[in-house]
Amino acid sequence: MLHIEFITDLGARVTVDVESADKLLDIQRQYGRLGWTSGELPSGGYQFPFDNEPDFDWALLGARKYTTPEGEELVYHKGHAYRRRELEPVDSRKMKLPAAVKYSRGAKNSDPEHVREKADGEFEYVTLAIFRGGRRQDRYATPGGASSGAPRTAAPAQAQPAPQRPRPAAAAVAPRPAAVGVVEEETPF
Amino acid sequence: MLHIEFITDLGARVTVDVESADKLLDIQRQYGRLGWTSGELPSGGYQFPFDNEPDFDWALLGARKYTTPEGEELVYHKGHAYRRRELEPVDSRKMKLPAAVKYSRGAKNSDPEHVREKADGEFEYVTLAIFRGGRRQDRYATPGGASSGAPRTAAPAQAQPAPQRPRPAAAAVAPRPAAVGVVEEETPF
Amino acid sequence: MLHIEFITDLGARVTVDVESADKLLDIQRQYGRLGWTSGELPSGGYQFPFDNEPDFDWALLGARKYTTPEGEELVYHKGHAYRRRELEPVDSRKMKLPAAVKYSRGAKNSDPEHVREKADGEFEYVTLAIFRGGRRQDRYATPGGASSGAPRTAAPAQAQPAPQRPRPAAAAVAPRPAAVGVVEEETPF
Amino acid sequence: MLHIEFITDLGARVTVDVESADKLLDIQRQYGRLGWTSGELPSGGYQFPFDNEPDFDWALLGARKYTTPEGEELVYHKGHAYRRRELEPVDSRKMKLPAAVKYSRGAKNSDPEHVREKADGEFEYVTLAIFRGGRRQDRYATPGGASSGAPRTAAPAQAQPAPQRPRPAAAAVAPRPAAVGVVEEETPF
Amino acid sequence: MLHIEFITDLGARVTVDVESADKLLDIQRQYGRLGWTSGELPSGGYQFPFDNEPDFDWALLGARKYTTPEGEELVYHKGHAYRRRELEPVDSRKMKLPAAVKYSRGAKNSDPEHVREKADGEFEYVTLAIFRGGRRQDRYATPGGASSGAPRTAAPAQAQPAPQRPRPAAAAVAPRPAAVGVVEEETPF
Repeated sequence: MLHIEFITDLGARVTVDVESADKLLDIQRQYGRLGWTSGELPSGGYQFPFDNEPDFDWALLGARKYTTPEGEELVYHKGHAYRRRELEPVDSRKMKLPAAVKYSRGAKNSDPEHVREKADGEFEYVTLAIFRGGRRQDRYATPGGASSGAPRTAAPAQAQPAPQRPRPAAAAVAPRPAAVGVVEEETPF
Repeated sequence: MLHIEFITDLGARVTVDVESADKLLDIQRQYGRLGWTSGELPSGGYQFPFDNEPDFDWALLGARKYTTPEGEELVYHKGHAYRRRELEPVDSRKMKLPAAVKYSRGAKNSDPEHVREKADGEFEYVTLAIFRGGRRQDRYATPGGASSGAPRTAAPAQAQPAPQRPRPAAAAVAPRPAAVGVVEEETPF
Repeated sequence: MLHIEFITDLGARVTVDVESADKLLDIQRQYGRLGWTSGELPSGGYQFPFDNEPDFDWALLGARKYTTPEGEELVYHKGHAYRRRELEPVDSRKMKLPAAVKYSRGAKNSDPEHVREKADGEFEYVTLAIFRGGRRQDRYATPGGASSGAPRTAAPAQAQPAPQRPRPAAAAVAPRPAAVGVVEEETPF
Repeated sequence: MLHIEFITDLGARVTVDVESADKLLDIQRQYGRLGWTSGELPSGGYQFPFDNEPDFDWALLGARKYTTPEGEELVYHKGHAYRRRELEPVDSRKMKLPAAVKYSRGAKNSDPEHVREKADGEFEYVTLAIFRGGRRQDRYATPGGASSGAPRTAAPAQAQPAPQRPRPAAAAVAPRPAAVGVVEEETPF
Repeated sequence: MLHIEFITDLGARVTVDVESADKLLDIQRQYGRLGWTSGELPSGGYQFPFDNEPDFDWALLGARKYTTPEGEELVYHKGHAYRRRELEPVDSRKMKLPAAVKYSRGAKNSDPEHVREKADGEFEYVTLAIFRGGRRQDRYATPGGASSGAPRTAAPAQAQPAPQRPRPAAAAVAPRPAAVGVVEEETPF
């Protein structure tokens, strides 16, 4: 028997019994869809393989995707909205890094020190997840192949394979402080 | 089986077994009425849909409403009294926010950094809950339609039961720091 | 089934199963008599109704009353001795407060920030409990009507049982505020 | 049923079920002999009665005594070596304290603030345990009457009753920084 | 019955029941191979006997060894890559220390204060484990005699199974100390 500790969507501390280890991700999905989270956001954010990004099951993290009235897709996690950014590969003398997709937001005063990352100038941000390198793990995929939070019936086939990829606007590597602030003010219930 | 961790009204750490997930809110209500709380006050306070405010069940948070001898309704939570404030909608170039209702109090020295919010000048405050936007969720409502702690039927306003919690000892409340900055007051969220 | 988490008199983290909610205070008394505590001292100290002070059962907090060789009654809690103080009612323009009884001690370097309260000058203190206002709750009373740790019947003042906690070893005497530091240097086993 | 939380010798967080309260110290001894500890070192160190010092069972704290190649007896606890020091009684106008035996070590950068104590100058130290005053409690004694970690067969009778008492060198109240550093670098597996 | 608390590879807090104390290390190995860890990295790192280094089972710590494309063996633990370093014995007037093997990495801003150690200049590093002195303990060895994560038999170096953790995606090359920063920027799934 296993037991997983969650913070519920109401902020309560609740442990759920799990019959066996192979049922664990199912339980995380089931309660994650309610916005329950387990554990803390690691500094630098959760790390996943690059090829898991298109159909990643955000429910595993207690997060969900949603589309703003303006049509931008954001990921909502514990009261914060994270924006998708594509990072170019790095190939300098000091560092070699493959391309990545990162979900991040501007930092707030109330964010603990260890999750803040410095960008240009005084701007600080917080990363929810970064998808880079590695080999795809099917267990992280949204069951049924659709992106979690994006109902798989209604979605046009064209948007399926890489719904996050298109819009150039969202692909900005540099954070846009003003815009970030605005987006995060919304309460997407 | 689930297990929910509470801090009791006596400050003790107590876990309660819960038969199934659909019984969880009942248990939170049952023990919340005794002043038991689960989890920490999130920075910026708990977030609920605007339309849940009128009949919100404060017992879910281990809080309760009470009326001062002067007739003001306050919410009492873990030894602190929170005052109700209505926030106008914001519609500026930088930010668009719908109207909200907020329960907040002045900060104390002993409040942890991450729950303090800055208002004008040096004044700092702490938000218990903010009701803004979103879509009403019936599960947050007081069962029977009355506001929790303020039963509209039997109990006369003067002689409420409230056997667990003495009435507020201090009748004094420092004059409302009127200038609680509008924008700041609107908790990013 | 409930489960209550204690820190034992040896500093160990121990959880005790409790059959039902109505047995909880019994369990807290039973283990509290051994010096076990549950949860943290809240900032500002525990709050109880004024009328609970005379026969308050300190075992509920893992504390106990004892009498110094000089005849002063102190409350011993987690290695600290707290002194009883009576607070006059306050009736100024800014604040109205009924009379209170407070158990407090001088702060030490090792006390966490959130339990320190400022007094005059640089003096800081820590409050264990404050009894003010409210309505007496019988469930907080010492069973049998005696003050916990100071049985009024059988035990002669000299030869009290207290098998777990010997009497204070040192015999410091000094006037009020200055003496606090002195008293607390003792290890009152 | 009770449950005690340990940090194992490998740093893992493990809870052990305990049948009843009277079995608790047995369990603490059993796992303490493996170096498992429960709870945090309290500021100022664990406090025990003076008369418990000669045959104190260090396994209760997850500690053990060992003898260096130079013949000094140290107490090893969670990767640190503590040296035995005898404190003279204090009898000044401001303070009266009986004699004590203290196990302490020099502080390290990584020690949390609340366990550091100031000595002369800038030197800081950490106390594992202090034995002062009070009345002996047999439940803290090493079962069989020998000091834990000092096999009772081999030990010469003369060293039995108060093996820690003799050597004047070890009775120094003032810490000896250089020596401490050396000792603590050792990994006495 | 025992219960061990893990942080899973997804950052979730999960407790696993363990039948008896002698099964504990098996469970730690089983889940450690998935990257699950229990407890915090101690300051100064885990300490093991010198003779345990060659066949140490890194799965016990939720870590694993892997070989970079350049042929360097690193240990991967909770998102960080640690490099192996051999420390010469110290035999000065102030300190005597036997030879050691240490696994460490450069510190990051997000590392908590208590795990940072100062090196020359402003450089700070974090130690995962140090192997020094002591007596070999077979229970720490990789079952079957091979180093965990680097099976010496069936698996060809190129096509290792490692289904959970892809090989390091980036190909950083650089000389010793300076390179640490580089290597750690990679996300070695």
